[in-house]
Amino acid sequence: RINEKRLWDTLMEMGDIGGTEKGGCNRLAGTDLDKQSRDLFVSWCKACGCNVEVDKIGNIFARRPGKYNDLPAVGTGSHLDTQPTGGKFDGVFGVLSGVEVLRTLHDNNIETPTAMEFSVWTNEEGSRFQPAMQGSGTYVGRFDLETELNKTDVNGIRLGDELERIGYLGEMELGSRNMGAFFEAHIEQGPILEDEKKAIGIVRLGQGIRWYNIEVIGRPSHSGTTPMHLRKDAMLAAASIVTEMNAIALRHENGLGTVGFMQVWPNSRNTIPGNVKFSADLRNPRPDILLTMHEELIAFCEKIAKEHDLDVNIDPFWYFAPVEFNASDDVKAATEKLGYSHMDIYAGAGHDACYMADLVPTGMIFTPCLNGISHNEAEYSSPEECAAGANVLLHTMLEASER
Amino acid sequence: RINEKRLWDTLMEMGDIGGTEKGGCNRLAGTDLDKQSRDLFVSWCKACGCNVEVDKIGNIFARRPGKYNDLPAVGTGSHLDTQPTGGKFDGVFGVLSGVEVLRTLHDNNIETPTAMEFSVWTNEEGSRFQPAMQGSGTYVGRFDLETELNKTDVNGIRLGDELERIGYLGEMELGSRNMGAFFEAHIEQGPILEDEKKAIGIVRLGQGIRWYNIEVIGRPSHSGTTPMHLRKDAMLAAASIVTEMNAIALRHENGLGTVGFMQVWPNSRNTIPGNVKFSADLRNPRPDILLTMHEELIAFCEKIAKEHDLDVNIDPFWYFAPVEFNASDDVKAATEKLGYSHMDIYAGAGHDACYMADLVPTGMIFTPCLNGISHNEAEYSSPEECAAGANVLLHTMLEASER
Ligand SMILES: NC(=O)NCCC(=O)O
Ligand SMILES: NC(=O)NCCC(=O)O
Repeated sequence: RINEKRLWDTLMEMGDIGGTEKGGCNRLAGTDLDKQSRDLFVSWCKACGCNVEVDKIGNIFARRPGKYNDLPAVGTGSHLDTQPTGGKFDGVFGVLSGVEVLRTLHDNNIETPTAMEFSVWTNEEGSRFQPAMQGSGTYVGRFDLETELNKTDVNGIRLGDELERIGYLGEMELGSRNMGAFFEAHIEQGPILEDEKKAIGIVRLGQGIRWYNIEVIGRPSHSGTTPMHLRKDAMLAAASIVTEMNAIALRHENGLGTVGFMQVWPNSRNTIPGNVKFSADLRNPRPDILLTMHEELIAFCEKIAKEHDLDVNIDPFWYFAPVEFNASDDVKAATEKLGYSHMDIYAGAGHDACYMADLVPTGMIFTPCLNGISHNEAEYSSPEECAAGANVLLHTMLEASER
Repeated sequence: RINEKRLWDTLMEMGDIGGTEKGGCNRLAGTDLDKQSRDLFVSWCKACGCNVEVDKIGNIFARRPGKYNDLPAVGTGSHLDTQPTGGKFDGVFGVLSGVEVLRTLHDNNIETPTAMEFSVWTNEEGSRFQPAMQGSGTYVGRFDLETELNKTDVNGIRLGDELERIGYLGEMELGSRNMGAFFEAHIEQGPILEDEKKAIGIVRLGQGIRWYNIEVIGRPSHSGTTPMHLRKDAMLAAASIVTEMNAIALRHENGLGTVGFMQVWPNSRNTIPGNVKFSADLRNPRPDILLTMHEELIAFCEKIAKEHDLDVNIDPFWYFAPVEFNASDDVKAATEKLGYSHMDIYAGAGHDACYMADLVPTGMIFTPCLNGISHNEAEYSSPEECAAGANVLLHTMLEASER
């Protein structure tokens, strides 16, 4: 069994880096705070004798050798970056469950058959740079390295420059780790496990995600002198699309639709907005339904452009197809062995494991979180809940290594 | 008659300060560019022998003495600040028509019976600091000086500090100029004079304006894991209010409704917005209708707050009641004497003259502008159209001085 108190203490120590007054965490990818959290992870892994390497998109891999080091290692990992209004658990819990597994093996002098790999993936959140799961997606070959390094934040700062600046633009080739299976522990981020009073969620599926950049181009003009019928009001058109995003979600079973980001230009209260840029996020566990939602959004944007006599440009720059986790039964076996209550579940959020599933048998372990709240400073998972997840991770990894 | 080419040249020279690639102007109140434009105005006035003073809110007054200097002066003026996507004419045309009147009097050695006053008012636009017509409104006593100097822009910078920094925080008491009448020339900023093919608009009324700061306080949470029915989506609620602003305007004769400014927090695409702040601008020439529009907006915000189970705070921080210009007949007489086509009109925008009407007989002279477009870099008024307005200003002021 892992050490519950030690796991909790590492969570709290890591959470202090970018910790907020309300008990959350604001640690965007590629910032100085991201560097501090990475450095701490590296120091903890090195203290347990790991060899640490960084790849070309900044993913970190710490390896603990086993008995047969030519055999593929068993991997785990998650991310240390957070949302601007993030909590102390999203991603971090997965990384530190790994560290706790590592320490448990180390302290007990356990020699595993295969090596064990503990990883931190770059920019999983997709908040400062897009898309989400950028490090893992690039590692597995879904995204082009140069394209991703050239991605910029709202201030025009390149991801590649930020990684170099914080010392995490590595030399290691993408996809080059010798790994045979991958497991990620994560808080559920939703209300289901709590509602159902289950300690562990066996994640069977990661739902589909479609992300868009939408730009409405109207005509700036005076709010006091432009008659209503002569306006090309980019804000009004954008508001219709926001409302429709909600309607699309409600029309489809398990549909979700969100506009989280918006920039208005010139953003002056007596000038009718000439340009509004915003994000759209559509999700569904079923790819056919998600496609219909996508088509409805595109059609609606075209309709709005005509009705308002202005331009609506929509860039569907990211599609993440639903993924099935094919090593879920390993997670289930370990959970049952340990005697935790459990249920099958699907992941509403994207996770690094979703991309790792491209390369190796992959499973995910969910733990409950208070009121199902995440991407909020109030995000919380109790010491016991965290310990359960880390114990399942430990035993899932040990089993996989034995085989 | 004034000198058409000279007027045009000063407009173009002033327009270069903050001039944009698309031929417009971005010269926000209290910036270095505002300082440059003020300095140029002051140097032009001094070159014609004026004595220049600055009051406690940064308004500039240049006085050309007349024969009887104890008599109240005849004043004119407007503003040099622009919108972020402003043109070269809004405000500037009125100020430089004044300079052209001054130069015409000076070059022809005309001694007017009363003194003539040429003024520049601080932050008429209300874009960087609120409300609009801040300098004239404070001068006439509608606003409290300390409150206005303490107003901050979106970056928290105080108006008072900016005025001091650019050297235009003066010592002169508010409301202390000895003026007996005030006239302001301005581009119409709307499409009516152009449609009706009239050279001059005799402005009879300034319509009513109500400005609001609205803040929707929801709950930030994850876009991929928060079921639709558990959301408190501040963006969705804000979008409904934007849509309703349009509907309120369309329901009422001559109604206008605009949301020009919006800030989203945390502005991350996979976090449901926890907080959206935006502006609302309602206008109507009739105070009773404007009051109904106001009540409808308040009621709708309350309804939305209930429906979405979140908070909507609405601060109706500025009400400008419709104002009648009681020296319009002076403008009409001068226009007819000069033989320009004309029509009565009301002002959709607020103007410094609207507040000066509190203190002295006041009139406004409108000139056409291309396609009725303003608060847009494409704003344009031809040299002939500008000259007509400046000629009417000259003769209106001369007549008023004679009486
Ligand atoms: N785990 C997590 O919150 N990932 C962010 C990517 C997303 O699902 O939007
Ligand atoms: N003239 C002008 O555009 N004034 C700005 C104030 C307003 O009407 O919004």
